[in-house]
Amino acid sequence: MDVQWNDLIVRDARALTASEIRDLLKVAERPEITSFAGGVPDPALFPLGDFNSVYRDLMDDDTAGRRSLQYSISEGLPALRQWIVDDLATNGAVRDISNILITCGAQQGLDMLGRLLLEAGRQIVVEKPTYLGAMQAFSMRRPEYVGVDMDDDGPIIAQLEAAFANGARIAYLAPDFQNPTGRSYSLERRLAVLDVARKYGAVILEDAAYCKLSYDGTSLPSLLALDDTGGDLAAGTVIQLGTFSKTLAPALRIGWVTAPRPVIERLVLMKQAGDLHVSTVNQEVALRAAGRLFPGHIDGLRDAYRHKRDTMLAALDDFMPDGVTYTRPQGGMFIWLTLPENIDSRRLLELALEEAKVAFVPGQAFFCDHSGTNTARLSFATEKPDRIRSGIERLAALIKRVHNQY
Amino acid sequence: MDVQWNDLIVRDARALTASEIRDLLKVAERPEITSFAGGVPDPALFPLGDFNSVYRDLMDDDTAGRRSLQYSISEGLPALRQWIVDDLATNGAVRDISNILITCGAQQGLDMLGRLLLEAGRQIVVEKPTYLGAMQAFSMRRPEYVGVDMDDDGPIIAQLEAAFANGARIAYLAPDFQNPTGRSYSLERRLAVLDVARKYGAVILEDAAYCKLSYDGTSLPSLLALDDTGGDLAAGTVIQLGTFSKTLAPALRIGWVTAPRPVIERLVLMKQAGDLHVSTVNQEVALRAAGRLFPGHIDGLRDAYRHKRDTMLAALDDFMPDGVTYTRPQGGMFIWLTLPENIDSRRLLELALEEAKVAFVPGQAFFCDHSGTNTARLSFATEKPDRIRSGIERLAALIKRVHNQY
Repeated sequence: MDVQWNDLIVRDARALTASEIRDLLKVAERPEITSFAGGVPDPALFPLGDFNSVYRDLMDDDTAGRRSLQYSISEGLPALRQWIVDDLATNGAVRDISNILITCGAQQGLDMLGRLLLEAGRQIVVEKPTYLGAMQAFSMRRPEYVGVDMDDDGPIIAQLEAAFANGARIAYLAPDFQNPTGRSYSLERRLAVLDVARKYGAVILEDAAYCKLSYDGTSLPSLLALDDTGGDLAAGTVIQLGTFSKTLAPALRIGWVTAPRPVIERLVLMKQAGDLHVSTVNQEVALRAAGRLFPGHIDGLRDAYRHKRDTMLAALDDFMPDGVTYTRPQGGMFIWLTLPENIDSRRLLELALEEAKVAFVPGQAFFCDHSGTNTARLSFATEKPDRIRSGIERLAALIKRVHNQY
Repeated sequence: MDVQWNDLIVRDARALTASEIRDLLKVAERPEITSFAGGVPDPALFPLGDFNSVYRDLMDDDTAGRRSLQYSISEGLPALRQWIVDDLATNGAVRDISNILITCGAQQGLDMLGRLLLEAGRQIVVEKPTYLGAMQAFSMRRPEYVGVDMDDDGPIIAQLEAAFANGARIAYLAPDFQNPTGRSYSLERRLAVLDVARKYGAVILEDAAYCKLSYDGTSLPSLLALDDTGGDLAAGTVIQLGTFSKTLAPALRIGWVTAPRPVIERLVLMKQAGDLHVSTVNQEVALRAAGRLFPGHIDGLRDAYRHKRDTMLAALDDFMPDGVTYTRPQGGMFIWLTLPENIDSRRLLELALEEAKVAFVPGQAFFCDHSGTNTARLSFATEKPDRIRSGIERLAALIKRVHNQY
């Protein structure tokens, strides 16, 4: 008899649905489309020549080269973890290498933390809107999402406290230049978030993917840094997710989880059972590239992306009609658009691709409650400044026309 | 209040326990120890110079270099999947790229298939003994293992049929040069396994990690190849796991799952949610290295490992006392030792490390029912031939002494 896949595939695996963003990107990749849809770094900013040298230096060294091609430990290379510890310290977070696990990008950290902390029906607090990829990673555990509204300074604390009071013990938050809105938390709000989490013994999963990409000299301490554990490496309220995807190259697939030791010990077993370890050669190359390139390369990225952000904001200011509002992010890759309530951004996207030759991501997918039908995420990361300006001009004209039709 | 980790960490995650093999390897790494414990390739056989050239060619090419540093699709690079399709065809398996997902080593394929097909209490058939890493990957789903005994030609078909008759619908099998025993299935047994699986609509997860490492010119068709789907890419009884870890370099973390399309479609969503995709640069480098090096490099590996296998078998023949039996593998990296029943191989290992300065892996961990206390896995892959011979001589002397003491 034939295999009955519908019976065999378990319910957890059936909880996943295709990502709209990924499907969209297929259309947005056509050259005639100006794409504000992708959440990917500008490949022109990859330090290709430096990578070439780093790979050559590594492979020219018989011992280091062969070691970099062999299996390694599940925790990740000690020297790379030490680099991360030192880097965290510059932001004020005091941890050691036993608090770090190297993962296949921050995305794997989300997936592993979902496997560690979530199960069917368990509550997890998320921002409204939140990073779609996090919800995708968590969804295989079939949790119950509790959405918290945001203002310009971060999550509404009363809502966060209500969620904890109702039994939630896990919150996923992105305090710096959030994907999709670009918003950051104020220092006061960071402290308030930590206070309320501690009151209830809740865990904060802090997504720090974009924290290095600050464009206005504003770099606040992370929740991890504010979570002073008094030197107790087993303690803490905050688990932070970091990555080289936005600062070196996404293709290395190198991220990390910084967490209290009991969490790391469990995650290491999970990593060993799941895929053994992150590519040794990629860890070695990331370590060498970061040591060689930072902080100069980061400054270069900031200059380039700041210019793109400013170009997009100026174009939005110049062209968008009344009734359209948008965030003014101090870092990251995204600007969040709120359209007049009568405009459905999914419908707008169809017109935008066809008529304005512009792509963006409709905002609804970023809301755990499927609200936000009149919102959209714009990325300024990959297009060139002149295309950013002309693309926004065409999009604005389309929005004006659509708005007047209703 | 403090975070109550014991309440928060879910039961699935608590099902994992530390791997004995990994802990053992820490001791076995000391230079005075002759280690037959590791299951890793000989790093002296890594084609380091070729990797150096491949990386340089890639990074010298601005377009290909930048593309290799960027995000890519979750399925894996189409050209790499096509290479795998072509390679499978040489073994007689007719599939196409929509049947392939690139994974972080074969280990991630095991983990993902566990997430797809297993849940608490669901039965999975495994060989006795079986690959420990597979049980580790599956264990997070808390399945019920159904062990099947093996003879020299493969699993006992009556036991396999009984397991299916009792409701099991998934079997994990390694027909070629199995880790840990080195055993392979005969052609007749392969056909019988497929017949009985089809009778019950069961799925076979075929581990093909070692299939290229054949030393006696004996390369039988895989279960995948024998699972003729008549060109229907959605059909099939066999899901096969492959890897470059034993043929190119483990550190690339490149494996693949070959499966009917409905399975691949589900796994792609899981991959996207889990860690987006396998390192683009590593996929590109693996493709170029395989294209440049195979099959000549494989022939070189076969010659080197054949010599090591022959050395270990000759030493076992020369030195092991009566009452000790062992497999005579036609490929792979392992020889399986069965000691007199009164010898506990865990206790023997302690003595072996201390007195004989030899490491191996006690066999019990490879049995789902924790039997096999008098068995051991010996790897001939990493040590040099002279150390293989002297190590086996010392181990044999120890076994003789221990045996006589009882």
